[in-house]
Order: sequence, then C-alpha cells, then structure tokens
Amino acid sequence: MQPYQPQDMFHPEQFRKEGHALIDLLADYLTDVGQQREVVLSCTAPDEEVEFWKTACFGDNLAYWKTVVARSIHLHHPRYMGHQTAVVANEAALSALVGAVLNNGMAVYEMGAVSTAQEQILVEVLAQALGFGFQAGGFLTSGGTLANLTALLTARAVKTNRDVWEEGMQEPLALLVSEEAHYCVDRAVRIMGWGSAGIIRIPTNSRMQMDTTSLPSAYEEACASGKKVVALVGSAGSTSTGSFDPLNELADFAGKHQLWFHVDGAHGAAVTFSDKYKLLLRGIERADSVVMDFHKLLGTPGLTTALVYRNGADSFRTFAQRADYLLEQTQSPEWFNIGRRTLECTKNMMVLRAYVLYQRYGTTFFAQQVERLHDLAQQFAQLVQGSPDFRLCTQPETNIVCFRYQPDYVPSQNVETLNREIRKRIIESGAFYLVQTQVKKQFWLRLTLMHPETTKEDLKILLLEIQRVASEIGPVHHPSIV
Amino acid sequence: MQPYQPQDMFHPEQFRKEGHALIDLLADYLTDVGQQREVVLSCTAPDEEVEFWKTACFGDNLAYWKTVVARSIHLHHPRYMGHQTAVVANEAALSALVGAVLNNGMAVYEMGAVSTAQEQILVEVLAQALGFGFQAGGFLTSGGTLANLTALLTARAVKTNRDVWEEGMQEPLALLVSEEAHYCVDRAVRIMGWGSAGIIRIPTNSRMQMDTTSLPSAYEEACASGKKVVALVGSAGSTSTGSFDPLNELADFAGKHQLWFHVDGAHGAAVTFSDKYKLLLRGIERADSVVMDFHKLLGTPGLTTALVYRNGADSFRTFAQRADYLLEQTQSPEWFNIGRRTLECTKNMMVLRAYVLYQRYGTTFFAQQVERLHDLAQQFAQLVQGSPDFRLCTQPETNIVCFRYQPDYVPSQNVETLNREIRKRIIESGAFYLVQTQVKKQFWLRLTLMHPETTKEDLKILLLEIQRVASEIGPVHHPSIV
Repeated sequence: MQPYQPQDMFHPEQFRKEGHALIDLLADYLTDVGQQREVVLSCTAPDEEVEFWKTACFGDNLAYWKTVVARSIHLHHPRYMGHQTAVVANEAALSALVGAVLNNGMAVYEMGAVSTAQEQILVEVLAQALGFGFQAGGFLTSGGTLANLTALLTARAVKTNRDVWEEGMQEPLALLVSEEAHYCVDRAVRIMGWGSAGIIRIPTNSRMQMDTTSLPSAYEEACASGKKVVALVGSAGSTSTGSFDPLNELADFAGKHQLWFHVDGAHGAAVTFSDKYKLLLRGIERADSVVMDFHKLLGTPGLTTALVYRNGADSFRTFAQRADYLLEQTQSPEWFNIGRRTLECTKNMMVLRAYVLYQRYGTTFFAQQVERLHDLAQQFAQLVQGSPDFRLCTQPETNIVCFRYQPDYVPSQNVETLNREIRKRIIESGAFYLVQTQVKKQFWLRLTLMHPETTKEDLKILLLEIQRVASEIGPVHHPSIV
Repeated sequence: MQPYQPQDMFHPEQFRKEGHALIDLLADYLTDVGQQREVVLSCTAPDEEVEFWKTACFGDNLAYWKTVVARSIHLHHPRYMGHQTAVVANEAALSALVGAVLNNGMAVYEMGAVSTAQEQILVEVLAQALGFGFQAGGFLTSGGTLANLTALLTARAVKTNRDVWEEGMQEPLALLVSEEAHYCVDRAVRIMGWGSAGIIRIPTNSRMQMDTTSLPSAYEEACASGKKVVALVGSAGSTSTGSFDPLNELADFAGKHQLWFHVDGAHGAAVTFSDKYKLLLRGIERADSVVMDFHKLLGTPGLTTALVYRNGADSFRTFAQRADYLLEQTQSPEWFNIGRRTLECTKNMMVLRAYVLYQRYGTTFFAQQVERLHDLAQQFAQLVQGSPDFRLCTQPETNIVCFRYQPDYVPSQNVETLNREIRKRIIESGAFYLVQTQVKKQFWLRLTLMHPETTKEDLKILLLEIQRVASEIGPVHHPSIV
C-alpha cells in the first residue's frame, strides 16, 4: 500500500497522464481481441480468483487495469456469443468516462440538467419508434429488473381497487405472464408481497410464445379464486429463446379485461428501430408500459434501461398516494425532477452513453446494429439446419439461437451430458463463449450474437469446434462424462 | 446525422484517437474548475435545456462531450457544496471507463470473474472495518435505495411468521425508523405492500437522532394493533442533518424484541474507516445489515453501494423460498453467482471504481477523505457560530451543516423567504452550489462538504457572499421577495 497523495488523486495532470496511458492500454486490448489474438475468457475457480486478487500487488494503477482487462471476459472478441450484454461502441464507453468524472446525481434537476434533458429526448425518440403518441413519457433506470418492478408498481397503483401505496395490500393481487418470461417478473411479484399465487404462468406454444388461447381460462380461474388480476405481461422476447409473444392478442385481452399491459422488451424492444424486424413487435404500441435495455442490442454499457409509458402521466403515479396524484394533476408534474418517478434517488448519468450514439447517427446505428445481429442469428440457424449432427431448438426470432449437438448415434439420454461437457471444454479453452439453457425442460446450447464483427466463418468454426471436441470426448458412454 | 460507420464505432484506432482527445478535454476541465475559472453550475430552465439539445448539432463526438461538460454541474469545483455525491478521484473515474469497455454482466460468475472476486474482498474489508466477524458477507448493488430495499426484503424473509416470498403477505407487517430517515425506507415499505401503517416513525431529539425512549411505546402500540414488527432501522446519518442514531441503544431494543436491525449508512457508514470519527457508529457491529455508498464520502462514481450482512448466509435468503434456503444450507451456496442475491440480474462492474482505490492505498484514502470532509464541516460550523448574523441548526456530526442567515433585524416570518432567495441568487450566479432542506418543519440552508480541496477561505467567502446577496435583496419586506 502506498501513502495517500490527495494531490495525485485529484490532480488534473495525474488524470491526464494516467488517462492517456489507459486509453492506449484499452485500444491495444481492443486491437488484440478484435483480431482474436487473445482468448475470449480464462476460466478460473472463484476461490482462486479471490486468492489472486488478495495477494496481487501492483506498481501502479496501469498494472492494475492491465490485469483487470486480461482476467475479465472479453466481449469485444468476435467469438464472444454468450449472455446478451452489449459489445460496447467506442463513443458509448468514452461517454461513461464523462459521466464518471462529472458524477451528476440526477435525483433533482439541478443535479443533472444535461442528463435530465437528454433522457427526456431519448425517451421521446424511443416512444415514437414504438408507435406511442405525443402523450408518452418515461425515464432511464438501473437495469431491466428494476424497470420491470417499477412498471408493475405503476400497474398496481393504477389498477387496484384500493390504494395499496397508502393502505397496503388489501386483496390478493396477481398478474398473467408467459412461463418463458424472465425471472425478474416473478421476483417483482414476490417483492410486492403477492407470493407465488400472484404469478399466473401461461403456457407457451412450440415456438415459446405465449399461447393466448390459455388466457381466458387462466384469468377466469384467478378471478373465481378471489384474485384481483392487475396486469398482463408480454415478453419481447422470452429469456431462453428470444421468442416474441403475440402482443396484439395480448393487447386485445388486456383491453377487454381492463388489465395493465406491460411489455418486458429488455432484450427485444430494440428491434423497433429496424424496419426489417420491427414487425415482431406488432401491438407494442398498445402497451401501457415498455422496458428496453440500451445495454443489450444497442452497443451501450450497462445498466442503461428505458421505461416508457404510453401515457406519460402514469409514470408519476408509481410512488405517490392517489390523493397526491390527483392534486398533482392540477399542478405542474415537475417532470424534470426525475427522482420522483425512478426507484433510485441518486442515479448515474447513464443517458450520456446512449445519447452520444443518437446525437451522431440518429436511430441509424440502432437499426443497423439490430439487423446485423439478427441476420447473423439467421445465418447460424441455417448452418445448424444444414448440419445433420446438429438440432435447432426453434427458428430464431431475435439474435438468440438455441441448438445442440445430437448426432444420430448418441443415445438421447446422453445428449445433455455430452453437450454440457462440450460447452465446458470449449469455454475452458477460451476459444468461444456460449451458454446453456433449459427450454421446456430440455437442455440446449445457447448462442447470442452480440458482436457486429462476428463473421459467418466464426460461426462455421464454432460448429467444427463442437464436432472436434465431441470426438475428443469420445464414446458418449465413457464413464468420465456419463 | 451522419451515416453509420461501424468500422469507426468499433475500431480500436478510433477509440484511441477519440480517447486521447477526451482525456485532454477532461484534464483541462478539471484544471479549470479546480482553479475556479469556471462557474459551479449554469442554471437553465428544464424546457430550455431540452430545446437546446434538440436543436444542437455537433461536428464530432468531442464537441458533444465538451458541451455536456460545460452545461453539467461541476462537482470538482471547490465551491460545490451541494448534495452528497462524490467528487470523483482520478483513478476511480478511469476505472469506470475500464468497466464500460469490458461491460462484464456479473449475474453469473463466468460473466465477471474479476469483479465478483473483488466484490468479495471489498465487502470483507468493509465488514471488518464495521466490526463484523468472519461470517459476514454481502455484495455491491445499484444505489442506496435498492440496497435498503434488498436488506428489508431479507428482514422480511427472516423475521416473519409466514413465508412471504411463497405465500404472499399474510399479516400486517411494519418496521420502526426515525422520522428523519431517508425517504427510501418509506418507499421500500410501500413497495412491499405494507402501506403507510407499515412505517412507524420514531421522533427525534433536538440533534435529530432517534429518541429511543419513544421506542417501547411505539412498539407496544404496533403489536397491540395486530402488526408484526419485523425490523428496526437506524440512520447513520439522517438525511437532512447527517445525525447518527444511537446504534447501541437500537441494537439493545432490536435484540430484546428479536427485530432485524438494519442500518442505513448510505452516507455515514464510511466513517468506519476513520479512527477519529468511527465512534459515531458505536453499535453498528451489532446490526444485521448495513448499507454504505462508496459514491458519497469515498470518491467513487455512482452508483456503487455495498450491502453487508453480519451473517453472510442471510444474504441468500432474500430472494428464496424458505424450503430452497434450507436445501441450500446443505449444499454450496454458490456465493460467486451474485445475481442470486442482488436485485439486479445484469449489474455493471461497479467494484472496479472503488477497488482501484483500495488496492493502491488500503483504507488510508477512505479514512483521510472522511476526516478531511468532516473537519471542513467542523470549521464551517465554527465560522457560522462566530458570525452573529447566522444560525446553526445543530452541531454537525458528519460533513453536512445546516445553517441560515438570520440577522436580528429580519422578522422571523421572513427568514425562510430571505434564505430561499439568497440560495436562488447564489446558485444562479454559479459562484457556489448549496441546497436547502426542512428540519422539524423549519427551513435551513444545507452544505455538504464534498471536495477535499475546499478551503476555509472558500467557506468564509460563502458567508460573505450570503451577506452581500442579502444586502442586495434589500429590505426583507420588499414585495418581490415576500
């Protein structure tokens, strides 16, 4: 440990010196992983990793950063195809530095005039792309889980018979959602105290989209058992396969029964920017609220999530008593003091990281990013379908592809074990990063195409690599893997 | 708008070029505000600010960043004395850039080995400083509001008679907290569906600390009315004045009644690193959970919040059914898949921004930062007390000082109007940034000393400036301000 030198830690020339060195370090890193001269990730055991950092000692900050970079997972590697976290565009990353230096707190307007105004504009742009009218409104918040919770709190505020904010829960509440939805909807329900009975799971069809024919009976059963159903949640897309629920049908049902219609588009709502793919979202313009992450498909560092309301005035009802809200309707809603509407009090200047892309390219970058990644997924699905040893789980709708290695000679009871082992060996080699998932209780490998510079060649090599590793594993009845 | 050039947006040499230019821009900015050649903030009306950004057009990203910097509030200005958001240390800001480029998602270990390990270590360091034993544990999360909500969800999971996660609310729940606590405790209670009856506010003494003599009757009354009280929340410190509740007395009471004892130390728990000030936290080592923001006193960009549990195993109970939890106790708790314990699924690599300070200076920087800012507050309080025209609200315990301009000749009914106007004019001039607050229904100006290079001279000039502005306002019965 070194003595504390405040003159260094806050000195502009120290910032300049270390900053330039860091920029070179990161640019070199981007070059190396971009050209695949580095592995995608180096696997270490968690306890080993802790031990490493406990005993590590660095001569200067640069050595520390270099080690952080080397040991992290490398999303900028074109063979990173794992979880749907963005490969960050240059200017979006650099804008995060601007936000970190300025550190405006955002809870009230004075503490973040620039970012408050930019949020307003960016939300407007998104609302327009979604097909909302001029009365739409919203804000950015720290991640999809928080945004979905916030939207469901609004639903609760608007749709219950009693004022839950003031009176507490006075009746059993529930919502309807696909069984393939992200777990954060379940969490939100339980956080609000609705329990497991508060989440009514609707089965999905073979493409993992909500089977809306099951909605009426599920709804009636809930009502008959005394539950007040407040919301219907659509997934765009679902967690495992990226499937889009038929939003128009959901909107019809929600409208008929006066339910709040929320769309968790954390991953997929971004396709609204693409003329080629936006049809997937047909009906989203009828949602009461939509969540979308800039930090998934749109090249932005996390957490940068938009929550947009079709009727912007609803956003003021989330954290307010009904009486307050009525009062406010006759007064200015102070849209610019965003902390009144976000779960966070202090919030970082997350908007800078997305606005920089918008101010420079309009929505063109967003559109082309979506199309590039979705097209890649289509290409990969074709490759899988053209390879007799592989199975495709379902035709991809977004940039997610679930598939597995399943040659005819592998007994079906060994398929999961074999694919688990394949993935394990591949990520241990650092050659690719891909994940695994369960779809309808079956095991699949899961690819999310995130890197705009991943090529068809990379995808072909992945399939070859899987075959090579499988042959290395040898007979599938080998004791080491069964 | 310019055509989309993916080869620019993801090209390492573009990153290098723009990165170096940005470093110079930010270093120049830090120089200028450090030497007070810039204003602290430029006040614009919210709608004007939106209009500005809607019509602005920038030749390149650098021009955009320059404008963002110019129009934001300048926390690195030594006369920034407003909300308690950190003036960020150089290496902490630069580490945010590392995190933004790498963008590891953190929900599972593979997606963030480095940051997972560093969180483990940093939480251990904090736990040790707080006086917790080896069984302590925790994680970082996106802000104090989220962290407090998470801790209270744990309290609910551990202390209720029924399994709320599974069964939903089955009895009226409540917690005890000081009337001077941060509003996020109230929000958390209402989010969980407890309603206003779920928050039992304990009055404070003249120093805005919880008056623990009121606890027994409040508790008995709650029980008598059929509420299940699950938690007692201490503030360290309170929102308006930064007052510390007597934590040992709270711990006694919580222990006697088997309540979860949570301490919201978002602002003040950082004093645990200072031998000089840590006595303020006496008793915190008996808390079940403690929240502390690195992005307040500790020079780190937001949001970077620690939630530490005295018994780390409790952290696994927040989002789990009791049955699951029992099951897990016999298995590995997978501490390294942090998404199981945090409200967020994807989380950013926030730890890098604080760990960089720890790996270099141990806890010395944290200690000296706390002491510098607290000492400044003491100096300012002395200046106020030495100036007959000023009143001190209460002796500061932390780096927050509430005071006002109140010469004898100003009628008491005009004091608020006068001080509001003084603050308005001062922040409009951009000379200083300070805020206002209500303490026991009275209006006060509020200073939070955040900048380690603020001097006693700056503080003297603030008082002179207030007097000058007051005289400019003129007779306080002037119609324009009454």
